[in-house]
Amino acid sequence: MKQYLELYKGELLDQVIPFWENNSPDKVNGGYFTCLDQYGKVYDTDKFVWLQARQIWMFAMLYEQVEPNEEWLKIAKSGAAFLIEHGRDEQGAFYFSLDQKGKPLVQPYNIFSDCFAAMAFAALNKIEPNEEYATLAIKTFDNILERRDNPKGIYSKTFPGTRNLKSFALPMILSNLTLEMGALLDDEKVSSLVPAVIREVMEVFLQKDSGLILENVNLDGSFSDSFEGRLTSPGHAIEAMWFMLDLSQKYNDEDLCQKAIDTGLKTLEYGWDKDYGGIYYFLDICGHPSEKLEWNQKLWWVHLETLVFLSKAYAITGNNECLQWFNKVHDYTWKHFKDPESPEWFGYLDRYGKVQLPLKGGKWKGCFHVPRGLFQVWKNLEKIK
Amino acid sequence: MKQYLELYKGELLDQVIPFWENNSPDKVNGGYFTCLDQYGKVYDTDKFVWLQARQIWMFAMLYEQVEPNEEWLKIAKSGAAFLIEHGRDEQGAFYFSLDQKGKPLVQPYNIFSDCFAAMAFAALNKIEPNEEYATLAIKTFDNILERRDNPKGIYSKTFPGTRNLKSFALPMILSNLTLEMGALLDDEKVSSLVPAVIREVMEVFLQKDSGLILENVNLDGSFSDSFEGRLTSPGHAIEAMWFMLDLSQKYNDEDLCQKAIDTGLKTLEYGWDKDYGGIYYFLDICGHPSEKLEWNQKLWWVHLETLVFLSKAYAITGNNECLQWFNKVHDYTWKHFKDPESPEWFGYLDRYGKVQLPLKGGKWKGCFHVPRGLFQVWKNLEKIK
Repeated sequence: MKQYLELYKGELLDQVIPFWENNSPDKVNGGYFTCLDQYGKVYDTDKFVWLQARQIWMFAMLYEQVEPNEEWLKIAKSGAAFLIEHGRDEQGAFYFSLDQKGKPLVQPYNIFSDCFAAMAFAALNKIEPNEEYATLAIKTFDNILERRDNPKGIYSKTFPGTRNLKSFALPMILSNLTLEMGALLDDEKVSSLVPAVIREVMEVFLQKDSGLILENVNLDGSFSDSFEGRLTSPGHAIEAMWFMLDLSQKYNDEDLCQKAIDTGLKTLEYGWDKDYGGIYYFLDICGHPSEKLEWNQKLWWVHLETLVFLSKAYAITGNNECLQWFNKVHDYTWKHFKDPESPEWFGYLDRYGKVQLPLKGGKWKGCFHVPRGLFQVWKNLEKIK
Repeated sequence: MKQYLELYKGELLDQVIPFWENNSPDKVNGGYFTCLDQYGKVYDTDKFVWLQARQIWMFAMLYEQVEPNEEWLKIAKSGAAFLIEHGRDEQGAFYFSLDQKGKPLVQPYNIFSDCFAAMAFAALNKIEPNEEYATLAIKTFDNILERRDNPKGIYSKTFPGTRNLKSFALPMILSNLTLEMGALLDDEKVSSLVPAVIREVMEVFLQKDSGLILENVNLDGSFSDSFEGRLTSPGHAIEAMWFMLDLSQKYNDEDLCQKAIDTGLKTLEYGWDKDYGGIYYFLDICGHPSEKLEWNQKLWWVHLETLVFLSKAYAITGNNECLQWFNKVHDYTWKHFKDPESPEWFGYLDRYGKVQLPLKGGKWKGCFHVPRGLFQVWKNLEKIK
């Protein structure tokens, strides 16, 4: 596996990051364009707050972890200034999207704007400690915890009381965000939050009988036989498992480590398309037709997060099954998602592995899963003896 | 073309309608199951109000136009009783979805529940004139007109003022609904509404330069260079063109008739997949990557509505291009959507024409486009001399 170290590192630093440096910054208004076509040309100028925040995080993290490149710092700070000026409503919640100049387009119905904003400002505060960044990160993190039981707030279309579900996305992202916040959270908060989040992920959303993770469950943790209740997203579950691996390392929890590896491998076995290769986007756990028309498409982030999980699990344990799967997913991913013509990777393939949308960035794909995935795999490979 | 008359009629009366009669009625709670697998088995019990309403309309319409079959009347009335008892919130707006027993699941964020409820109760009132049906149809129709400028109301996530768009769906559906309401609307209302609706469809949403219809435009009718503004849905536009043909016949408007045929054919030429056949679901009018992951899938309703448009246009004018296209779309549709194993048609094919979801009914596919399409084509073929 170690033979791939230079491949991942080079792809990150020589191909993918330069693509975003060259094409993404909006030099007039600040912030980033993320709707970039195959060759990096901007085809839409709207700014999606969670993708702005993810890109701030990405460049700040690289500055901290790879090298103090002043250009990276400048890019991160330009995004931060844009979000500070335009990103929030009067209650301090981050909008979902803004126009090019920063005028709000879509209300803060989606809590992931807040999640990634907290992560972004926490990362910036690590490299340039600053009252404004720190306060914003902490306040936003507290907002998330407050909105936790009703993340969509007034924008929810669910009629209260008939079928109250909770979503896997929130505990899953909190399990990563809590670590990312680092020293900004006091120990007491972390030590009450982390075990609760691990319990949600590994005991509530992880179904005992199937060994798989559900996207939504009833408030009491029971199974809901509905479209939402039957929904599984293998990539989402596998991504959560590497967050669990990180927590298991931080807290020296071997049981958690083993359970995360078992669950990730089980999910991968379940989500792998035995006919055409690649990992499905969505599956109905009862095998019924999915509500999602795109269920059998192969998405970039699913495959990158799986490579992170496998390389991390292998680096920690040397598990041979992880090695076998890594090689298989690596081959599929590099063959199908990497664009031989132009930097950055394709995001959306159809079931058969053909490019479904030629974009390199859009409303849901920004400067995040490809570079974070390449970085993580590189670092995991370094740890292999 | 006329050779196909018995094929469409037989498919409707011997295959598709019996499928819904046999599998759909909820004999315990009233209303209909619409989530039916390839063989008609219920795989989810939620009730989507607009699909409930469309099925009421379908059976009432068949009772009126084909034969006074008491079983059809019973089915229509069971759905109506269910919606009357459970369908509305306190303001009289129809919910988006209910559980099996009728408890509300999703709020009335979507005005199409109201649109199809008005259509359903108007159709029932035609075959069984009744104060309750008539009042419900009229009141719901008036609600729609009131909510017209802000159809999503409090459930809208759009920040007001930055980019105010209006959607093609509403004038398009009003152009059909106004005719469907029949004698329930007074002449004055109709004669003020119809020309305004035709103007919206044929002069505001129909772009002069491209000759194509946009799904969303700025409030002043201008083009919005955004994901929503660039969105086209060929099937939606072609369906609207047969509504226009109906209006052109009712009001003896030859110019409207010709413009509708030109626009429908232009849209079909634009939306046809030259490589694999079939009509795309969504296209970006500037040729940019679509925001919709399912953009290149081939959907049942798109193809059925196109067959209705072509057969109607041919029956009225004898236009040869409509005949050529009818044969081409007919061949694709029957070859790919009709299931040789079990009644009712598949709804979702991938770009290559392979079945993407094996369901016969779901959250968005009910007893509507297949039977209405078959009925309409049958009746259009009858009119050909």
